[in-house]
Amino acid sequence: MNFEMAAELLASPVATVMTDDDVAVESSTWSAGRRGVAGTLVVEKVVGAAAEQGRDLASVAALGARVNARTRSMGVALTSCTVPAAGRATFEIGETEMEMGVGIHGEPGRRRVPLASADHIAEEMVSAIASDLGAVVRGDALLLVNGFGGTPAMELYLLYNAARHLLEKHGARVIRSLVGNYVTSLEMAGASVTVSMLQEDHVALWDAPVETAALRWGR
Amino acid sequence: MNFEMAAELLASPVATVMTDDDVAVESSTWSAGRRGVAGTLVVEKVVGAAAEQGRDLASVAALGARVNARTRSMGVALTSCTVPAAGRATFEIGETEMEMGVGIHGEPGRRRVPLASADHIAEEMVSAIASDLGAVVRGDALLLVNGFGGTPAMELYLLYNAARHLLEKHGARVIRSLVGNYVTSLEMAGASVTVSMLQEDHVALWDAPVETAALRWGR
Repeated sequence: MNFEMAAELLASPVATVMTDDDVAVESSTWSAGRRGVAGTLVVEKVVGAAAEQGRDLASVAALGARVNARTRSMGVALTSCTVPAAGRATFEIGETEMEMGVGIHGEPGRRRVPLASADHIAEEMVSAIASDLGAVVRGDALLLVNGFGGTPAMELYLLYNAARHLLEKHGARVIRSLVGNYVTSLEMAGASVTVSMLQEDHVALWDAPVETAALRWGR
Repeated sequence: MNFEMAAELLASPVATVMTDDDVAVESSTWSAGRRGVAGTLVVEKVVGAAAEQGRDLASVAALGARVNARTRSMGVALTSCTVPAAGRATFEIGETEMEMGVGIHGEPGRRRVPLASADHIAEEMVSAIASDLGAVVRGDALLLVNGFGGTPAMELYLLYNAARHLLEKHGARVIRSLVGNYVTSLEMAGASVTVSMLQEDHVALWDAPVETAALRWGR
Protein backbone atom coordinates (compact mmCIF):
# COMPACT_ATOMS: atom_id res chain seq x y z
CA MET A 1 0.00 0.00 0.00
CA ASN A 2 2.71 2.49 0.99
CA PHE A 3 4.87 1.77 -2.03
CA GLU A 4 1.87 2.15 -4.33
CA MET A 5 1.03 5.49 -2.76
CA ALA A 6 4.65 6.63 -3.18
CA ALA A 7 4.57 5.59 -6.85
CA GLU A 8 1.36 7.57 -7.41
CA LEU A 9 2.93 10.68 -5.90
CA LEU A 10 5.85 10.62 -8.30
CA ALA A 11 5.49 12.55 -11.53
CA SER A 12 8.31 10.68 -13.27
CA PRO A 13 7.86 7.15 -14.68
CA VAL A 14 7.93 4.46 -11.99
CA ALA A 15 8.29 0.69 -12.12
CA THR A 16 7.63 -1.56 -9.15
CA VAL A 17 9.69 -4.63 -8.32
CA MET A 18 8.13 -6.98 -5.80
CA THR A 19 10.43 -8.96 -3.50
CA ASP A 20 9.03 -12.13 -1.94
CA ASP A 21 12.10 -14.10 -0.90
CA ASP A 22 10.88 -15.47 2.44
CA VAL A 23 10.33 -19.22 2.23
CA ALA A 24 9.14 -19.51 5.84
CA VAL A 25 5.57 -18.29 5.50
CA GLU A 26 3.47 -18.68 2.38
CA SER A 27 0.72 -16.43 3.70
CA SER A 28 -0.42 -15.15 7.07
CA THR A 29 -2.78 -12.68 8.71
CA TRP A 30 0.03 -10.16 8.32
CA SER A 31 0.67 -10.64 4.64
CA ALA A 32 -0.75 -11.59 1.25
CA GLY A 33 1.57 -14.08 -0.37
CA ARG A 34 5.22 -14.34 0.52
CA ARG A 35 7.02 -11.62 2.39
CA GLY A 36 10.06 -9.72 1.20
CA VAL A 37 12.88 -9.98 3.74
CA ALA A 38 16.67 -9.58 3.53
CA GLY A 39 16.78 -10.67 -0.11
CA THR A 40 15.62 -7.12 -0.79
CA LEU A 41 19.20 -6.00 -0.11
CA VAL A 42 20.52 -8.19 -2.93
CA VAL A 43 17.82 -7.03 -5.36
CA GLU A 44 18.43 -3.38 -4.51
CA LYS A 45 22.21 -3.62 -4.83
CA VAL A 46 22.08 -5.28 -8.25
CA VAL A 47 19.30 -3.05 -9.56
CA GLY A 48 21.06 0.05 -8.23
CA ALA A 49 24.26 -0.83 -10.06
CA ALA A 50 22.32 -1.42 -13.29
CA ALA A 51 20.55 1.93 -12.96
CA GLU A 52 23.89 3.63 -12.33
CA GLN A 53 25.11 2.20 -15.64
CA GLY A 54 22.27 4.10 -17.30
CA ARG A 55 20.09 1.12 -18.25
CA ASP A 56 16.47 2.04 -18.97
CA LEU A 57 13.72 1.67 -16.39
CA ALA A 58 11.99 -1.35 -17.93
CA SER A 59 15.17 -3.41 -18.18
CA VAL A 60 16.23 -2.45 -14.65
CA ALA A 61 12.83 -3.53 -13.31
CA ALA A 62 12.99 -6.78 -15.26
CA LEU A 63 16.46 -7.43 -13.84
CA GLY A 64 15.11 -6.87 -10.32
CA ALA A 65 12.36 -9.41 -10.93
CA ARG A 66 14.91 -11.93 -12.24
CA VAL A 67 17.16 -11.52 -9.20
CA ASN A 68 14.18 -11.80 -6.86
CA ALA A 69 13.07 -15.00 -8.60
CA ARG A 70 16.45 -16.59 -7.76
CA THR A 71 16.66 -15.34 -4.17
CA ARG A 72 15.35 -17.08 -1.04
CA SER A 73 15.59 -16.31 2.67
CA MET A 74 14.59 -17.57 6.08
CA GLY A 75 15.10 -16.09 9.53
CA VAL A 76 15.12 -17.07 13.18
CA ALA A 77 14.51 -14.83 16.21
CA LEU A 78 15.72 -15.48 19.75
CA THR A 79 14.13 -12.34 21.18
CA SER A 80 11.49 -9.89 20.06
CA CYS A 81 12.23 -6.28 19.31
CA THR A 82 10.43 -3.34 20.87
CA VAL A 83 9.07 -0.87 18.35
CA PRO A 84 9.45 2.53 20.08
CA ALA A 85 5.96 3.77 19.11
CA ALA A 86 4.43 0.60 20.58
CA GLY A 87 6.62 0.64 23.69
CA ARG A 88 6.37 -3.10 24.30
CA ALA A 89 7.80 -6.25 22.74
CA THR A 90 6.14 -7.21 19.43
CA PHE A 91 5.85 -10.79 20.66
CA GLU A 92 6.65 -12.73 23.81
CA ILE A 93 9.27 -15.45 23.65
CA GLY A 94 10.83 -17.51 26.42
CA GLU A 95 14.55 -17.52 27.16
CA THR A 96 14.87 -21.08 25.87
CA GLU A 97 12.69 -20.66 22.80
CA MET A 98 13.16 -19.34 19.28
CA GLU A 99 10.80 -18.35 16.47
CA MET A 100 11.65 -20.07 13.20
CA GLY A 101 10.82 -18.10 10.06
CA VAL A 102 10.29 -14.74 11.70
CA GLY A 103 9.62 -11.65 9.53
CA ILE A 104 11.89 -8.61 9.53
CA HIS A 105 9.57 -6.64 11.79
CA GLY A 106 9.09 -9.56 14.16
CA GLU A 107 6.03 -10.95 12.39
CA PRO A 108 5.27 -14.52 13.44
CA GLY A 109 7.13 -17.31 11.66
CA ARG A 110 6.50 -20.99 11.10
CA ARG A 111 6.65 -22.25 14.63
CA ARG A 112 8.02 -21.73 18.11
CA VAL A 113 10.71 -24.29 18.98
CA PRO A 114 13.26 -24.87 21.75
CA LEU A 115 16.69 -23.26 21.32
CA ALA A 116 19.00 -25.31 19.12
CA SER A 117 22.59 -25.15 17.92
CA ALA A 118 23.69 -22.95 15.01
CA ASP A 119 24.22 -26.12 12.93
CA HIS A 120 20.68 -27.27 13.61
CA ILE A 121 19.20 -23.85 12.85
CA ALA A 122 21.20 -23.60 9.63
CA GLU A 123 20.04 -27.08 8.63
CA GLU A 124 16.36 -26.11 8.83
CA MET A 125 16.87 -22.79 7.05
CA VAL A 126 19.10 -24.07 4.26
CA SER A 127 16.89 -27.12 3.67
CA ALA A 128 13.82 -24.92 3.27
CA ILE A 129 15.67 -22.57 0.93
CA ALA A 130 17.26 -25.31 -1.17
CA SER A 131 14.02 -27.23 -1.45
CA ASP A 132 12.27 -24.09 -2.64
CA LEU A 133 14.99 -23.26 -5.16
CA GLY A 134 14.84 -26.79 -6.58
CA ALA A 135 17.32 -27.48 -9.39
CA VAL A 136 18.35 -23.81 -9.49
CA VAL A 137 20.42 -24.35 -6.30
CA ARG A 138 23.13 -26.09 -8.31
CA GLY A 139 25.14 -23.06 -9.39
CA ASP A 140 27.01 -19.99 -8.22
CA ALA A 141 25.49 -18.43 -5.12
CA LEU A 142 25.67 -15.34 -2.98
CA LEU A 143 25.22 -16.18 0.70
CA LEU A 144 24.05 -13.37 2.99
CA VAL A 145 23.85 -13.99 6.73
CA ASN A 146 21.98 -11.00 8.09
CA GLY A 147 21.80 -10.12 11.78
CA PHE A 148 18.60 -8.61 13.15
CA GLY A 149 20.49 -6.12 15.34
CA GLY A 150 21.15 -7.87 18.66
CA THR A 151 23.35 -10.76 17.54
CA PRO A 152 27.13 -10.38 17.67
CA ALA A 153 29.27 -10.83 14.57
CA MET A 154 30.85 -13.95 16.07
CA GLU A 155 27.50 -15.76 16.07
CA LEU A 156 26.66 -14.57 12.58
CA TYR A 157 29.92 -16.05 11.29
CA LEU A 158 29.15 -19.34 13.10
CA LEU A 159 25.83 -19.46 11.28
CA TYR A 160 27.51 -18.49 8.01
CA ASN A 161 29.97 -21.35 8.31
CA ALA A 162 27.20 -23.87 8.95
CA ALA A 163 24.97 -22.50 6.18
CA ARG A 164 27.78 -22.46 3.66
CA HIS A 165 28.72 -26.09 4.23
CA LEU A 166 25.09 -27.19 4.01
CA LEU A 167 24.47 -25.14 0.90
CA GLU A 168 27.47 -26.68 -0.82
CA LYS A 169 26.07 -30.13 -0.04
CA HIS A 170 23.00 -29.10 -2.03
CA GLY A 171 25.26 -28.35 -4.99
CA ALA A 172 25.64 -24.57 -4.67
CA ARG A 173 29.01 -22.87 -5.00
CA VAL A 174 29.26 -19.83 -2.72
CA ILE A 175 31.26 -17.25 -4.70
CA ARG A 176 30.06 -14.10 -2.94
CA SER A 177 29.16 -13.51 0.70
CA LEU A 178 28.06 -10.86 3.13
CA VAL A 179 27.79 -11.20 6.91
CA GLY A 180 26.55 -8.49 9.25
CA ASN A 181 23.63 -6.42 10.49
CA TYR A 182 21.98 -5.06 7.34
CA VAL A 183 18.22 -5.67 7.37
CA THR A 184 17.58 -5.25 11.06
CA SER A 185 14.69 -5.30 13.55
CA LEU A 186 16.14 -2.85 16.07
CA GLU A 187 17.60 -4.85 19.00
CA MET A 188 16.15 -8.24 18.00
CA ALA A 189 18.48 -11.21 18.57
CA GLY A 190 18.47 -13.55 15.60
CA ALA A 191 19.52 -13.75 11.99
CA SER A 192 18.39 -14.71 8.54
CA VAL A 193 20.04 -16.66 5.77
CA THR A 194 19.58 -15.43 2.21
CA VAL A 195 20.74 -17.35 -0.85
CA SER A 196 20.74 -15.63 -4.22
CA MET A 197 21.61 -17.82 -7.19
CA LEU A 198 23.81 -15.69 -9.42
CA GLN A 199 23.77 -15.24 -13.16
CA GLU A 200 26.81 -13.86 -14.92
CA ASP A 201 25.66 -10.22 -15.05
CA HIS A 202 24.46 -10.33 -11.42
CA VAL A 203 28.00 -10.97 -10.21
CA ALA A 204 29.44 -7.91 -11.97
CA LEU A 205 26.55 -5.76 -10.74
CA TRP A 206 27.01 -7.02 -7.17
CA ASP A 207 30.73 -6.26 -7.40
CA ALA A 208 30.17 -2.79 -8.86
CA PRO A 209 31.39 0.07 -6.64
CA VAL A 210 28.97 1.06 -3.90
CA GLU A 211 29.16 3.69 -1.20
CA THR A 212 26.18 3.74 1.13
CA ALA A 213 25.88 3.78 4.91
CA ALA A 214 25.78 -0.02 4.95
CA LEU A 215 27.66 -1.18 1.85
CA ARG A 216 31.02 0.19 0.80
CA TRP A 217 33.26 -1.48 -1.67
CA GLY A 218 34.91 -1.16 -5.01
CA ARG A 219 35.76 2.54 -4.86
CA MET B 1 50.72 -9.06 30.19
CA ASN B 2 49.58 -10.51 26.86
CA PHE B 3 50.84 -7.58 24.83
CA GLU B 4 54.21 -7.73 26.59
CA MET B 5 54.47 -11.44 25.82
CA ALA B 6 53.60 -10.77 22.17
CA ALA B 7 56.27 -8.07 21.99
CA GLU B 8 58.87 -10.45 23.43
CA LEU B 9 58.00 -13.09 20.81
CA LEU B 10 58.64 -10.71 17.92
CA ALA B 11 62.13 -10.62 16.48
CA SER B 12 61.63 -7.21 14.82
CA PRO B 13 61.76 -3.93 16.76
CA VAL B 14 58.60 -3.26 18.75
CA ALA B 15 57.23 -0.17 20.43
CA THR B 16 54.29 -0.23 22.83
CA VAL B 17 51.59 2.44 22.96
CA MET B 18 49.40 2.35 26.03
CA THR B 19 45.78 3.47 25.72
CA ASP B 20 44.02 4.58 28.88
CA ASP B 21 41.09 6.65 27.67
CA ASP B 22 38.40 5.47 30.11
CA VAL B 23 37.49 8.28 32.52
CA ALA B 24 34.96 6.15 34.41
CA VAL B 25 37.26 4.10 36.62
CA GLU B 26 40.62 5.30 37.90
CA SER B 27 41.56 1.86 39.22
CA SER B 28 39.75 -1.32 40.20
CA THR B 29 40.36 -4.92 41.16
CA TRP B 30 40.29 -5.64 37.42
CA SER B 31 42.87 -3.10 36.36
CA ALA B 32 45.95 -1.08 37.29
CA GLY B 33 45.37 2.54 36.37
CA ARG B 34 42.91 3.58 33.73
CA ARG B 35 41.54 1.17 31.20
CA GLY B 36 41.83 1.42 27.45
CA VAL B 37 38.40 1.30 25.84
CA ALA B 38 37.00 2.48 22.48
CA GLY B 39 39.58 5.29 22.19
CA THR B 40 41.89 2.49 21.08
CA LEU B 41 40.12 2.58 17.70
CA VAL B 42 41.07 6.22 17.20
CA VAL B 43 44.68 5.64 18.25
CA GLU B 44 45.01 2.61 15.99
CA LYS B 45 43.49 4.33 12.94
CA VAL B 46 45.76 7.37 13.23
CA VAL B 47 48.88 5.34 14.01
CA GLY B 48 48.08 2.90 11.21
CA ALA B 49 47.85 5.71 8.66
CA ALA B 50 51.15 7.16 9.86
CA ALA B 51 52.85 3.77 9.59
CA GLU B 52 51.45 3.33 6.10
CA GLN B 53 53.10 6.63 5.14
CA GLY B 54 56.42 5.04 6.09
CA ARG B 55 57.12 7.04 9.24
CA ASP B 56 59.65 5.40 11.56
CA LEU B 57 58.64 3.32 14.57
CA ALA B 58 59.62 5.83 17.24
CA SER B 59 57.67 8.70 15.71
CA VAL B 60 54.64 6.47 15.08
CA ALA B 61 54.69 5.36 18.72
CA ALA B 62 55.06 8.96 19.91
CA LEU B 63 52.12 9.97 17.74
CA GLY B 64 50.03 7.18 19.30
CA ALA B 65 50.86 8.45 22.77
CA ARG B 66 49.89 12.00 21.76
CA VAL B 67 46.54 10.89 20.35
CA ASN B 68 45.85 8.80 23.45
CA ALA B 69 46.65 11.78 25.68
CA ARG B 70 43.89 13.77 23.96
CA THR B 71 41.29 10.98 23.90
CA ARG B 72 38.69 10.17 26.58
CA SER B 73 35.81 7.71 26.77
CA MET B 74 33.03 6.51 29.00
CA GLY B 75 30.48 3.72 28.54
CA VAL B 76 27.14 2.55 29.83
CA ALA B 77 25.73 -0.99 29.80
CA LEU B 78 22.05 -1.95 29.93
CA THR B 79 22.71 -5.69 29.86
CA SER B 80 25.69 -7.92 30.47
CA CYS B 81 27.27 -10.03 27.78
CA THR B 82 27.84 -13.77 28.03
CA VAL B 83 31.41 -14.81 27.29
CA PRO B 84 31.02 -18.21 25.56
CA ALA B 85 33.80 -19.90 27.53
CA ALA B 86 32.15 -18.80 30.79
CA GLY B 87 28.64 -19.67 29.62
CA ARG B 88 26.93 -17.22 31.95
CA ALA B 89 26.44 -13.46 32.13
CA THR B 90 29.56 -11.58 33.28
CA PHE B 91 27.41 -9.58 35.69
CA GLU B 92 23.78 -9.48 36.77
CA ILE B 93 21.77 -6.37 36.04
CA GLY B 94 18.06 -5.70 36.45
CA GLU B 95 15.79 -4.74 33.57
CA THR B 96 15.42 -1.21 34.93
CA GLU B 97 19.08 -0.67 35.81
CA MET B 98 22.21 0.36 33.98
CA GLU B 99 25.92 0.22 34.75
CA MET B 100 27.61 3.59 34.26
CA GLY B 101 31.25 3.45 33.24
CA VAL B 102 31.35 -0.19 32.22
CA GLY B 103 34.52 -1.65 30.66
CA ILE B 104 34.57 -3.17 27.18
CA HIS B 105 34.46 -6.72 28.51
CA GLY B 106 31.69 -5.88 30.96
CA GLU B 107 34.03 -5.00 33.82
CA PRO B 108 32.23 -3.10 36.58
CA GLY B 109 31.87 0.65 36.17
CA ARG B 110 31.31 3.55 38.53
CA ARG B 111 27.91 2.70 39.84
CA ARG B 112 24.62 0.96 39.20
CA VAL B 113 21.79 3.42 38.55
CA PRO B 114 18.16 3.33 37.36
CA LEU B 115 17.56 3.54 33.60
CA ALA B 116 17.61 7.12 32.34
CA SER B 117 17.03 8.91 29.04
CA ALA B 118 19.70 9.17 26.34
CA ASP B 119 20.05 12.88 27.14
CA HIS B 120 20.66 12.13 30.80
CA ILE B 121 23.18 9.39 30.03
CA ALA B 122 25.00 11.63 27.56
CA GLU B 123 25.12 14.41 30.15
CA GLU B 124 26.93 12.23 32.68
CA MET B 125 29.35 10.82 30.13
CA VAL B 126 30.19 14.08 28.37
CA SER B 127 30.58 15.93 31.68
CA ALA B 128 33.06 13.36 32.93
CA ILE B 129 34.98 13.46 29.66
CA ALA B 130 35.02 17.26 29.37
CA SER B 131 36.02 17.69 32.98
CA ASP B 132 38.90 15.29 32.47
CA LEU B 133 40.04 16.98 29.27
CA GLY B 134 40.04 20.38 30.97
CA ALA B 135 40.97 23.30 28.71
CA VAL B 136 41.89 20.90 25.88
CA VAL B 137 38.16 20.38 25.18
CA ARG B 138 37.97 23.76 23.45
CA GLY B 139 39.02 22.74 19.96
CA ASP B 140 38.32 20.44 17.03
CA ALA B 141 37.01 17.04 18.10
CA LEU B 142 36.28 13.60 16.78
CA LEU B 143 33.16 12.13 18.39
CA LEU B 144 32.80 8.34 18.35
CA VAL B 145 29.61 6.75 19.65
CA ASN B 146 30.38 3.07 19.89
CA GLY B 147 27.76 0.36 20.34
CA PHE B 148 28.60 -2.68 22.47
CA GLY B 149 26.86 -5.08 20.08
CA GLY B 150 23.21 -5.26 21.17
CA THR B 151 22.12 -1.65 20.68
CA PRO B 152 20.43 -0.66 17.42
CA ALA B 153 21.88 2.11 15.23
CA MET B 154 18.82 4.27 15.92
CA GLU B 155 19.66 4.45 19.62
CA LEU B 156 23.33 5.10 18.92
CA TYR B 157 22.40 8.10 16.78
CA LEU B 158 20.09 9.38 19.54
CA LEU B 159 23.04 9.24 21.91
CA TYR B 160 25.32 10.84 19.33
CA ASN B 161 22.93 13.76 18.91
CA ALA B 162 22.76 14.36 22.65
CA ALA B 163 26.53 13.97 23.15
CA ARG B 164 27.35 16.29 20.29
CA HIS B 165 25.15 19.13 21.57
CA LEU B 166 26.58 18.78 25.09
CA LEU B 167 30.14 18.62 23.83
CA GLU B 168 29.66 21.80 21.83
CA LYS B 169 28.41 23.54 24.99
CA HIS B 170 31.79 22.70 26.52
CA GLY B 171 33.47 24.50 23.63
CA ALA B 172 34.38 21.57 21.37
CA ARG B 173 33.74 21.66 17.63
CA VAL B 174 32.87 18.20 16.30
CA ILE B 175 34.50 17.99 12.86
CA ARG B 176 34.72 14.21 12.54
CA SER B 177 32.32 11.51 13.75
CA LEU B 178 31.79 7.77 13.76
CA VAL B 179 28.68 5.94 14.98
CA GLY B 180 28.29 2.15 15.06
CA ASN B 181 29.32 -1.14 16.61
CA TYR B 182 33.12 -1.10 16.57
CA VAL B 183 34.57 -2.01 19.96
CA THR B 184 31.97 -4.51 21.06
CA SER B 185 31.21 -6.83 23.99
CA LEU B 186 29.36 -9.53 22.07
CA GLU B 187 25.61 -9.03 22.57
CA MET B 188 25.86 -6.41 25.33
CA ALA B 189 23.29 -3.61 25.13
CA GLY B 190 24.91 -0.25 25.73
CA ALA B 191 27.32 2.20 24.19
CA SER B 192 30.32 4.37 24.89
CA VAL B 193 31.15 7.94 23.98
CA THR B 194 34.71 8.72 22.92
CA VAL B 195 36.02 12.23 22.35
CA SER B 196 39.39 12.70 20.68
CA MET B 197 40.66 16.28 20.51
CA LEU B 198 42.26 16.60 17.11
CA GLN B 199 45.49 18.22 16.10
CA GLU B 200 46.06 19.20 12.48
CA ASP B 201 47.98 16.08 11.46
CA HIS B 202 45.51 13.79 13.28
CA VAL B 203 42.68 14.91 10.97
CA ALA B 204 44.58 14.02 7.80
CA LEU B 205 45.62 10.67 9.26
CA TRP B 206 42.04 9.91 10.35
CA ASP B 207 40.83 10.80 6.83
CA ALA B 208 43.53 8.72 5.13
CA PRO B 209 42.15 5.79 3.10
CA VAL B 210 41.35 2.69 5.13
CA GLU B 211 39.99 -0.69 4.16
CA THR B 212 39.44 -3.05 7.07
CA ALA B 213 36.50 -5.21 8.12
CA ALA B 214 35.15 -2.34 10.24
CA LEU B 215 36.43 0.88 8.65
CA ARG B 216 36.26 1.59 4.94
CA TRP B 217 36.67 5.01 3.48
CA GLY B 218 38.79 7.15 1.19
CA ARG B 219 39.60 4.52 -1.40
